[in-house]
Amino acid sequence: MKRFLMVTCVVFMSTTLLADEGMWTFDAAPKQQVQKRYHYHLTDGFLDFLHMATLRMNVGGSGSFVSQDGLIMTNHHIAHDCLAKLSTKAHDYVSEGFYAPAMKDERKCPDLEVNRLMSIQDVTRDVLAAVKKGMSDAQALQAKKAAMSRLEKACADATGLRCDVVTLYHGGKYELYRYKRYTDIRVVFAPGFPIAFFGGNKENFTFPRYDLDVAFLRAYENGKPVQTGSFLRFSPAGPKAGDLVFVVGNPGRTGRLLTVDQLTTVGKYSYPFILKVFQIKDKILNLYAAKGKEEARRSQEARFYAENAIKAITGFVASLNHKWLWQKKRRKEKALREAFAKMGKARDPWKVITKAQAVMRRIYRQYYLLERGYEYFGHLHGLARGIVRYVTETAKPNAKRLRRYRDSNLGSVRMQLTAKIPVYKDYEELGMRTGLETIRGLLGKHNAVVKTLLDGKTPDILAHELVAKTRIGDVDFRRKLMQMTPQQLRSCKDPLVHFALLEDRFARKVLKEYQDKVEGPERDGMRTIARLRFKLYGNKIYPDATFTPRLSFGVVKGYKTTHGFVKPFTRIAGLYKKAGKAYPYKLPQKWLKAKGSIDMNTPMNFCSTNDIIGGNSGSPVIDTEGRAVGLIFDGNIESLGNRFVYSEKTARAVSVDTAAIIEALKKVYHAQALLQELLNGYHRYQPTQRP
Amino acid sequence: MKRFLMVTCVVFMSTTLLADEGMWTFDAAPKQQVQKRYHYHLTDGFLDFLHMATLRMNVGGSGSFVSQDGLIMTNHHIAHDCLAKLSTKAHDYVSEGFYAPAMKDERKCPDLEVNRLMSIQDVTRDVLAAVKKGMSDAQALQAKKAAMSRLEKACADATGLRCDVVTLYHGGKYELYRYKRYTDIRVVFAPGFPIAFFGGNKENFTFPRYDLDVAFLRAYENGKPVQTGSFLRFSPAGPKAGDLVFVVGNPGRTGRLLTVDQLTTVGKYSYPFILKVFQIKDKILNLYAAKGKEEARRSQEARFYAENAIKAITGFVASLNHKWLWQKKRRKEKALREAFAKMGKARDPWKVITKAQAVMRRIYRQYYLLERGYEYFGHLHGLARGIVRYVTETAKPNAKRLRRYRDSNLGSVRMQLTAKIPVYKDYEELGMRTGLETIRGLLGKHNAVVKTLLDGKTPDILAHELVAKTRIGDVDFRRKLMQMTPQQLRSCKDPLVHFALLEDRFARKVLKEYQDKVEGPERDGMRTIARLRFKLYGNKIYPDATFTPRLSFGVVKGYKTTHGFVKPFTRIAGLYKKAGKAYPYKLPQKWLKAKGSIDMNTPMNFCSTNDIIGGNSGSPVIDTEGRAVGLIFDGNIESLGNRFVYSEKTARAVSVDTAAIIEALKKVYHAQALLQELLNGYHRYQPTQRP
Repeated sequence: MKRFLMVTCVVFMSTTLLADEGMWTFDAAPKQQVQKRYHYHLTDGFLDFLHMATLRMNVGGSGSFVSQDGLIMTNHHIAHDCLAKLSTKAHDYVSEGFYAPAMKDERKCPDLEVNRLMSIQDVTRDVLAAVKKGMSDAQALQAKKAAMSRLEKACADATGLRCDVVTLYHGGKYELYRYKRYTDIRVVFAPGFPIAFFGGNKENFTFPRYDLDVAFLRAYENGKPVQTGSFLRFSPAGPKAGDLVFVVGNPGRTGRLLTVDQLTTVGKYSYPFILKVFQIKDKILNLYAAKGKEEARRSQEARFYAENAIKAITGFVASLNHKWLWQKKRRKEKALREAFAKMGKARDPWKVITKAQAVMRRIYRQYYLLERGYEYFGHLHGLARGIVRYVTETAKPNAKRLRRYRDSNLGSVRMQLTAKIPVYKDYEELGMRTGLETIRGLLGKHNAVVKTLLDGKTPDILAHELVAKTRIGDVDFRRKLMQMTPQQLRSCKDPLVHFALLEDRFARKVLKEYQDKVEGPERDGMRTIARLRFKLYGNKIYPDATFTPRLSFGVVKGYKTTHGFVKPFTRIAGLYKKAGKAYPYKLPQKWLKAKGSIDMNTPMNFCSTNDIIGGNSGSPVIDTEGRAVGLIFDGNIESLGNRFVYSEKTARAVSVDTAAIIEALKKVYHAQALLQELLNGYHRYQPTQRP
Repeated sequence: MKRFLMVTCVVFMSTTLLADEGMWTFDAAPKQQVQKRYHYHLTDGFLDFLHMATLRMNVGGSGSFVSQDGLIMTNHHIAHDCLAKLSTKAHDYVSEGFYAPAMKDERKCPDLEVNRLMSIQDVTRDVLAAVKKGMSDAQALQAKKAAMSRLEKACADATGLRCDVVTLYHGGKYELYRYKRYTDIRVVFAPGFPIAFFGGNKENFTFPRYDLDVAFLRAYENGKPVQTGSFLRFSPAGPKAGDLVFVVGNPGRTGRLLTVDQLTTVGKYSYPFILKVFQIKDKILNLYAAKGKEEARRSQEARFYAENAIKAITGFVASLNHKWLWQKKRRKEKALREAFAKMGKARDPWKVITKAQAVMRRIYRQYYLLERGYEYFGHLHGLARGIVRYVTETAKPNAKRLRRYRDSNLGSVRMQLTAKIPVYKDYEELGMRTGLETIRGLLGKHNAVVKTLLDGKTPDILAHELVAKTRIGDVDFRRKLMQMTPQQLRSCKDPLVHFALLEDRFARKVLKEYQDKVEGPERDGMRTIARLRFKLYGNKIYPDATFTPRLSFGVVKGYKTTHGFVKPFTRIAGLYKKAGKAYPYKLPQKWLKAKGSIDMNTPMNFCSTNDIIGGNSGSPVIDTEGRAVGLIFDGNIESLGNRFVYSEKTARAVSVDTAAIIEALKKVYHAQALLQELLNGYHRYQPTQRP
């Protein structure tokens, strides 16, 4: 349930919220809804506390501060990337786990960045002021993006924070989000993969579950642990059934506000295509992993990610097979269009969007492969592409660049491009080959892009050449490249840089078409529709997910299926009962050893009605006091439809119970220092002076 | 109502809290009390938000963050010291006020430090572990203080924060308070003194009132405004009568837990003596101020402080004339002693404390004059004393130093000793003379200390000599002195340094006697009593004030006097009605000019039942949402008895209404940028791009 950075937006919006629906922004929190449904007074102060105690992780997940000394709780699968990068053949921290009993033992993640939301400011007026009369959609889009970059730069210069202008309601509202960036993140604790992902892909997106999908990290600044000020106290008891709970996290992408036509694009064109890409990738990865233990280790994260994506997208597509969804969607859209017609305005936004869909469907495959999915060629290729873009874009003035390379984001970009990460040539070659085979397979060998890139070679030969000869794996070389002018870069002899430059030319072409003919008109049309919605529904609506901090409310609650009632809690006893002799049900030795001392009745996982989606991974589940009682790590299969329409009936968020975390740290991992920090809220710097 | 740093502790404790009583610490907040009395659920999250949004000011007051960009609200009389130090003959910011329309116009305070509480940790066990069997009270005190310094240093080294171990319940509990220190504090806005302190000393400690006792500052860090994360939204409407409101601030000192004997010391010995000191000072200051406008300006802050102190202490003494107070106190103490007797322990803490009182009463005058009141000799003398102590103490290991000079506090001490402040020789000479006359007058001319210090000269001649010849006013000279060894300092030729060295010798002698025979035994005795109280009353008790962050709750509410009912709000109309032609009722020109446009019905000041005391000056009054609705600046005369026993009947906290602040900024001061920041919560860095 990692965030799907690559999955494009999709659809649905119920305007009468009678449920625990909504991924609410902090400046428009569901105070009335929570008051009405749960008689709980959500105060400004509590909301401020919540966003200060919770975090966004750049790998596409969420987290929270759980001690005054910078301790962070997140999922194992969010720390996975960092653990993999710290692992070697000799020490596989992903599988075996990791624990630092003292601060000096904590290990720094090479390129993990954590963001803490400091404040929100509405800048819609400022962004829209950049659009002048007579501009085309494409010009207007460029003007708005330039204004966003200017605002971000002014903010970053003045505050020293990371400042992002976020596009909400697909262009209906623009807000400046200011984040404190933490880039020195160290691993404190992670259990092994077998217990973190107990049940493997088979049990992924299901409930009842028995996963200890948790990891603890620590944020540092100037070499000292971050003093958090606001953090979530850790509840050793976890929640009770029926408890009102809040989830704060960064849902990545939903499509609840899209039009019927946009939804059709996603369901009929985008998803089926992305699914193919992942299936190719998954197949090749599995062949590689079968070669040996070390190969399995190197490819583990990618396999996990691919399998997860396949399962998720399959679920999304399945949810779009429900007729009632389309009927409901059409009915709502009809009502909106009628209301719009009465206003007598000239340009029908739905028509504008429909026209853009035709372009989108035509260019989608190239757009996705060249512009959205290129990271799946492997690390080296991703770095080469990133450097080419970095050099080309930073040569331009701030306001004219691609959004990713705006001044206010360059710190994060540079960190990623210059991080020291392990490079395995055979694995990189595999990635490169997969990428090349994918584009050849999906675009056809006669496609101009494919012909130019392959240059008459087979994917395996070209992949071998590129990886063998490139020096991109060397951080110093990358730094040198990053200081070049675009002209210097073009005369660089590195074959992978050359390849990335070629690719970039094609990518920019399709990107321009996307921006001019899809994004520009869509943004304009969506803004008109959003304004209409504000007018009709006021603060009862919330924006689609944007991988920015959101609040959701709900209750710990089971649900009915055709097989009967599913209780909201699982117990550790169930874990042992389910355990078997082979992956993915094999328990680690430590767990087998601890069996006698563990309280079997301890709640392990629980489900709740909170409205979440990929990107919420690692979000804390928070009780009405403001304490952490759980840790979101998944949703059940029924919850996948939440991407398009929230349903409280059977869709559930799935969390690790904090009681299970405490019991495991105590009885299985004997992590005394971590336990005391979680239970007391602070790290003990002082040696106890008691005799 | 500035904090009385010099007033020693005093007495009283009601154990059945049926009222809005209590200055609660954040780790033991009055959740049950607030729930029971006001049906309001005070959550952990809200409490965290409150301490993160509020501040302590080193000049002895409180404040709060009121924007995301480091804007601070406090009292004019808390910013007074900074304003005076920034003023010159040509620009008297105290009287005329100050406003910086843009950040670049803001002026840095030379030595104002602001602390933000980040977290609290109970370290009672660690402190008490330092006491070994067989130690005398004096040895135990030293051992505990050494342990406190060690804990503070370990914490400061690990976190980079200011770490203070706070002694609560006079030794019943020790807690490590971690603060973020802000030392770059700039003035944004202050109204003139005539409206900030409308009614002058005559109206001080009274209600109804009409003061605009507000100032806005801004905290910077690394040259950029502090990004607050948590701050109080500003309510333009203020509170309504009957509203539940919270006050977060740093009450300086109360004496509710003291024994009958300690209370007697305070009422019969300490207060009457301190009163005499201030009366001498006040008289001399007024003679000086009468010389001319510039002399009046230079002495204004000191006169304000002296008059305030005289009025407050007179009130404290008066409140101790109530027989019922003593009866109640004796009854409670009797009950405690009986409970103690049943436990069959050997050492009766009350007897220990009584014995210490005899010593205290004997040494009090010298102790106060040499050790507590020396800053009243003037700035230069205070700096000289500070440097002598700094050099002597820092030559010792951390754990052996006087508490003020422990490593974790040295940053603050250095800032104060090296700040560039204006020095007026005639005014300094006056201060020195006052000091010398005071000690001669109160200790007698045959006293050994007096004889040695005066060295056969008259106060005016010696004062002139010392001030004329010293170079202490020069910051570079002070820095040089601070780098000396104690031996080098002793051979320094500067006459004021020489004087301070002489004085220090006497001061240390009396300090040692105080610590060994008063503080040590008292601390031990009070700890025994505190433990008894914890046992009997649990979390229904709160510690005496310690100039650390505390929470109080109450309601906006009028009160009955013998003259009738006093309504909780005053209105701006009342201000104009009360205005006259002469100080202290003369309105500034700006207010007269704005009269036509002002909404006369705007609430100006209000009173509430919150339990506060000196040090709470500048505390925000916060509504149940977490918004600032008022600004504490005083208590009524009836509230002075709160030092010894809280009474809800007529004692009231007095605040500026946020509605008055908004109305004044809008109509009188036309402070657009500040207004927009208060109302929107952020400073506008961007030039508006709207045409």
